[in-house]
Amino acid sequence: MNNIGILGCGNIATKMAETINLMDDVTLYGVASRSLEKAENFAKIYKSKKAFGSYDELLSDDAIDLVYIAVPHSHHYQLIKDALNHNKNVLCEKAFTANSAMAKEVLKMAEDKKLLLAEAIWTRYLPSRTIISNIIASGVLGTVESVDSNLGYDIKENKRIREKSLAGGALLDLSVYPINFTLMFFESNIDKIESSVIFDKDTGVDGKECISLLYENGMIATCRTNIYANLDRRGVINGDKGYLEVTNINNPEAIKLYDTNYTLIKEYKIPTQLTGFEYEVQECLDCISKGLIETPSMPHKEIIRVMEICDHLRDSWNYHFPFE
Amino acid sequence: MNNIGILGCGNIATKMAETINLMDDVTLYGVASRSLEKAENFAKIYKSKKAFGSYDELLSDDAIDLVYIAVPHSHHYQLIKDALNHNKNVLCEKAFTANSAMAKEVLKMAEDKKLLLAEAIWTRYLPSRTIISNIIASGVLGTVESVDSNLGYDIKENKRIREKSLAGGALLDLSVYPINFTLMFFESNIDKIESSVIFDKDTGVDGKECISLLYENGMIATCRTNIYANLDRRGVINGDKGYLEVTNINNPEAIKLYDTNYTLIKEYKIPTQLTGFEYEVQECLDCISKGLIETPSMPHKEIIRVMEICDHLRDSWNYHFPFE
Repeated sequence: MNNIGILGCGNIATKMAETINLMDDVTLYGVASRSLEKAENFAKIYKSKKAFGSYDELLSDDAIDLVYIAVPHSHHYQLIKDALNHNKNVLCEKAFTANSAMAKEVLKMAEDKKLLLAEAIWTRYLPSRTIISNIIASGVLGTVESVDSNLGYDIKENKRIREKSLAGGALLDLSVYPINFTLMFFESNIDKIESSVIFDKDTGVDGKECISLLYENGMIATCRTNIYANLDRRGVINGDKGYLEVTNINNPEAIKLYDTNYTLIKEYKIPTQLTGFEYEVQECLDCISKGLIETPSMPHKEIIRVMEICDHLRDSWNYHFPFE
Repeated sequence: MNNIGILGCGNIATKMAETINLMDDVTLYGVASRSLEKAENFAKIYKSKKAFGSYDELLSDDAIDLVYIAVPHSHHYQLIKDALNHNKNVLCEKAFTANSAMAKEVLKMAEDKKLLLAEAIWTRYLPSRTIISNIIASGVLGTVESVDSNLGYDIKENKRIREKSLAGGALLDLSVYPINFTLMFFESNIDKIESSVIFDKDTGVDGKECISLLYENGMIATCRTNIYANLDRRGVINGDKGYLEVTNINNPEAIKLYDTNYTLIKEYKIPTQLTGFEYEVQECLDCISKGLIETPSMPHKEIIRVMEICDHLRDSWNYHFPFE
């Protein structure tokens, strides 16, 4: 029980493998790559029971309880369909798919087949999320007037980022984090989505963006990203009674409450973690055991919501992928 | 010599009076208000030689070398004209005027009359400006990819902010700081100016905004503001080799250099100051002694540039003042 199979052997796959090896009652059962050699090498290093030279072979193995998809997001749509067609529960890396139409199609499939289909946007599953939600709900910030969050890395030379055919660019790789940072704490209706974008001169992918989410209740959220420089990864939630500063929205390292005089009032303790991926894995396994097809931390409607925001942004930029 | 007259008795006037009292070789010669009682009270507290019950009386006094305009910005245009017509050198608080047409008119007047006309945007004159400029010029940040800065205060109940007839709202009171923070360090051409704005439900003034300045060289600058909450006042300059974090762009308290691993590399010492206003006063007096009509720290073309950006933003928001 709790046998996990990983599709892909890249960085994110290695982090998941390390996580599984650190967890109790969870087994790294198999890993698949289009190259058997790569899969075998990965299996050796990360102690996977099996290695497969094709995704289909892994998906055909009846012993696997949960498939983790760790390939570039341009390939998520097809692999999710393949996995569901093999009656597998699926945890798929972000961005979930390249657009919302694809997301809706596969989520409908999971619903029809009564299989778990979850997005591995790990920040939604981390304990820091609950800590932050509780602080906001406590009223200590007063009325929240604005949110600002950013994530940027110098990944301009990364092949996956540079290629439009791989759904490259900043939006689906990086902007989804500040967007999720905002949406998971502020669920009310968004009235308008506005943005500024600068396209990469060499590759034509979206290289930098500043996205504004204007909420019906008057709150404004800014999401900033780029693929050229490491931004400070900070998230700040501003209320009229104080503000909350989150260090590293991609895996919160510190959560600090300041009053309106910019004085540090409290620092909240963040639980130690294995790698941080254990929470999404555990929630998926709990959901499977309960027969749920979506995770409470990232429900299907939220997966669609994020993808629709990304669609809206790309439409406004007239930026489309060749396969769309 | 170096007799200064202040028009207005508000908060900013008191800060200037305190500054003058702390400076050597500068005298608080007179203060004017539309209420003589107010002026006399101010003069008593801040040791002004004279108190005037009208602006015209102060402007008519030949002993005054420099007039400091400290009334709401809706009244700057008229008072600058009045002061120049009395052949006075002028240091006028920000926002310089309500729009760029007014700015151009009074700057032309100063040129014709060969009088100093300066904008009291104090951050341009502070030593921290040179420190930051030198860091950027040293190349330690690499190529600067983005700038983010914010300034917000809970001033929604302030009469001056609430009234359109006083050129109220966030833009001319607050956004000018992040805009100046960006422009004074990055002078190259701006290709596009984009923004999101939320108007105040009760008063109709601009309450919150996120402004993006898209530079021709590919840099993006974000300027965030609101009148409802104290934002963290941070400015961050992001390069591909590291980033610089400025605490409080409205009067830098700390300047910290981080590398691309988010490690603090260096903290730069900021000279102690009287109030911070002494630098703009001293530069004005130096300029007068040299017969200059503009300050090197905030030349006339930059005053116009900022006002034109504000005009452009308000035009795009279809937001105009009743007196325009």
